[in-house]
Amino acid sequence: MFTFPTFLGAASSATDLAQVLLALLVIYIASKAGGEVAVRLNLPAVLGELVFGVIVGVSGLRWIGGASEFLTLLSELGVIILLFEIGLESDLKELLRVGPQAVVVAIVGVVAPFGLGTLGLIMFFGVGTIPAVFAGAALTATSIGITARVLSDLQRITSTEGQIIVGAAVVDDILGLIILAVVSGLASRGQVDALKIGIIIISAVGFLVAAIVIGRWAAPYFVQVVNLLKTRGDLLIASLLFAFGLAYIATVIGSEAILGAFAAGLVLAETDKKDSLEEQLKPVADVFVPVFFVLVGAKTDLRVLNPFEPTNREALIIAAFLIVVAVVGKVVTGLAVFGQPVNRWAIGCGMIPRGEVGLIFAAVGTTSGVLSPALDASLIVMVIVTTFLAPPLLRWAFR
Amino acid sequence: MFTFPTFLGAASSATDLAQVLLALLVIYIASKAGGEVAVRLNLPAVLGELVFGVIVGVSGLRWIGGASEFLTLLSELGVIILLFEIGLESDLKELLRVGPQAVVVAIVGVVAPFGLGTLGLIMFFGVGTIPAVFAGAALTATSIGITARVLSDLQRITSTEGQIIVGAAVVDDILGLIILAVVSGLASRGQVDALKIGIIIISAVGFLVAAIVIGRWAAPYFVQVVNLLKTRGDLLIASLLFAFGLAYIATVIGSEAILGAFAAGLVLAETDKKDSLEEQLKPVADVFVPVFFVLVGAKTDLRVLNPFEPTNREALIIAAFLIVVAVVGKVVTGLAVFGQPVNRWAIGCGMIPRGEVGLIFAAVGTTSGVLSPALDASLIVMVIVTTFLAPPLLRWAFR
Repeated sequence: MFTFPTFLGAASSATDLAQVLLALLVIYIASKAGGEVAVRLNLPAVLGELVFGVIVGVSGLRWIGGASEFLTLLSELGVIILLFEIGLESDLKELLRVGPQAVVVAIVGVVAPFGLGTLGLIMFFGVGTIPAVFAGAALTATSIGITARVLSDLQRITSTEGQIIVGAAVVDDILGLIILAVVSGLASRGQVDALKIGIIIISAVGFLVAAIVIGRWAAPYFVQVVNLLKTRGDLLIASLLFAFGLAYIATVIGSEAILGAFAAGLVLAETDKKDSLEEQLKPVADVFVPVFFVLVGAKTDLRVLNPFEPTNREALIIAAFLIVVAVVGKVVTGLAVFGQPVNRWAIGCGMIPRGEVGLIFAAVGTTSGVLSPALDASLIVMVIVTTFLAPPLLRWAFR
Repeated sequence: MFTFPTFLGAASSATDLAQVLLALLVIYIASKAGGEVAVRLNLPAVLGELVFGVIVGVSGLRWIGGASEFLTLLSELGVIILLFEIGLESDLKELLRVGPQAVVVAIVGVVAPFGLGTLGLIMFFGVGTIPAVFAGAALTATSIGITARVLSDLQRITSTEGQIIVGAAVVDDILGLIILAVVSGLASRGQVDALKIGIIIISAVGFLVAAIVIGRWAAPYFVQVVNLLKTRGDLLIASLLFAFGLAYIATVIGSEAILGAFAAGLVLAETDKKDSLEEQLKPVADVFVPVFFVLVGAKTDLRVLNPFEPTNREALIIAAFLIVVAVVGKVVTGLAVFGQPVNRWAIGCGMIPRGEVGLIFAAVGTTSGVLSPALDASLIVMVIVTTFLAPPLLRWAFR
């Protein structure tokens, strides 16, 4: 009936706990060591976490294998808490003001790398149309987690550029859901399921609008309830309930948990609880968020970068092309910002990291047999390089 | 290679995340609702968390089944963080000052319920010697988690009574490890393995002493290192590394993770970082700790309390006896405090909750075939009642 593994009686679970503790020790040492080295090199802390995560992946991940499912879920909660925090630091009015620019940036940042990538693969590398479309699609989606974290490290979330990037990354996330549905349909059945895509668009956009509209209506009642609470952690836990609740609804309707958490942060940022919530959320984010970035690093398979492996050479040549397209295709988005003077380089560089989303495209494409091993490997190289390139570039652009 | 379930590509993992989010929603709603109801009834919040946890267990636990392993590990981290916080709130000098009293309280609190329980079961209920010894042993171990949390709810950790109770509960925990080894040896081989018990004593006591002595020596260097750090969460993560590190070492040498975390808290409480660390640790504890108490409630199987089930009746009669012994055997510990005026009722009541430890005894006894189903069930009833009785009794005693 009960299983309490904090005692001798349950040896296997005590082992689980020991593995989790060891894994967290490794992850926190890597994140602190990496972060501290990075800031001393004038780089964002997250880059150090990623790089030291790679070292953990190469050297130590086998030690923590028993804890990997737990760590994966912890890291997912980490991204949810990160986006909640980013939403809380954002300003809904500013976000709506720069909304049109953010939408344009997102659309350009999808169309440019998709067009350049797909055409280039067909023309220069003789890739077939469907695999080229798939690889082009994998070039489109910005990683909101990495972008948001770099902005946070640089303390630029609240700048106009920061808000355009965050807004564009959110729109990009929704576009990514749509594009994945389109190309998955193409890959599996050779056609596009218009109904399914309609549902995705309506649920993602509708959810975000509804969450913000209903949330703003409900926020005063939320504050009233919190003011009635008397136990420890009243504001923090009530707010996490709000964030996790919206994240859960987003997941259930087939959208993304992070969109819900971001919307929750936006809504609570407008209440008079914003400052005390930010202060209490910070330590929680400090505990959860690094797990995500160290694991991103640790799961990076550096073997695809080895040029001495003959099968990698074709992949590395394609990858070089994809990296150029991935960087150029996002940097040009800065040029698309209209109507106000902004740091266009910063916006372009902020959209560069592909992170996990590109890898999901690669995984889906490979599983369905559309992508050749070389194309798959080159997409992975592209994701690694853009992810590690973006933090220093963004730092440079904000100078 | 990568599995990032925040996107459509990985449906099964997205389900895991949804289940974890739902489970956390249920847990936090139960903990807040229970806590708020309890404080309005002038009871410690933890009692409400336990009771509402029972309601979750009866009604909703099947919904969150997919997340149970994750939640169990999260709750174990919760107890570790709780004991780290309790250590941080404690005062090593005060604890050493009341140390002799705490040791006496712990020993009386082990000997009295063990003697009364074992003899009573043999004399009044005709139980055989070995099962009676086993059940007597299950009566001995105070649940440090519940006791510490109640003291924390009542803001009595730093009182002389609070420090005696915490100290006695820590000693009790070590005694519990020893007694479990003794009775497990008796149950499985009919004899006691003196070497194994010697190792347990040396490793548990030696670990605690070494952790505190070496920790006090290392603490100034720890502070120096923390002062050099420049990234977010420097103090918090460095401190958690210290706590998780000692918890891990404790686990590896066959002792308990919570002893390591408690020692880490004691050591860091003596540094000038104490206040800022306490402030940063509080939100983290607020997120992790309720998971433990709601799960303790949720895992309680109320069916053993049903008197309409004929097989439960014998168990309930034995249970009534065990509850009396369990309460009396701990309340008398207050009388054993010597040398200073203290609230003896509070100390006695503080030692009452048996929580998870008694259940592990019951589980080991049942698995090895020593305990009859009736005796097993009666031990479970005893644990439930003492756990739920202690918070209001302790609150009353502190009036």
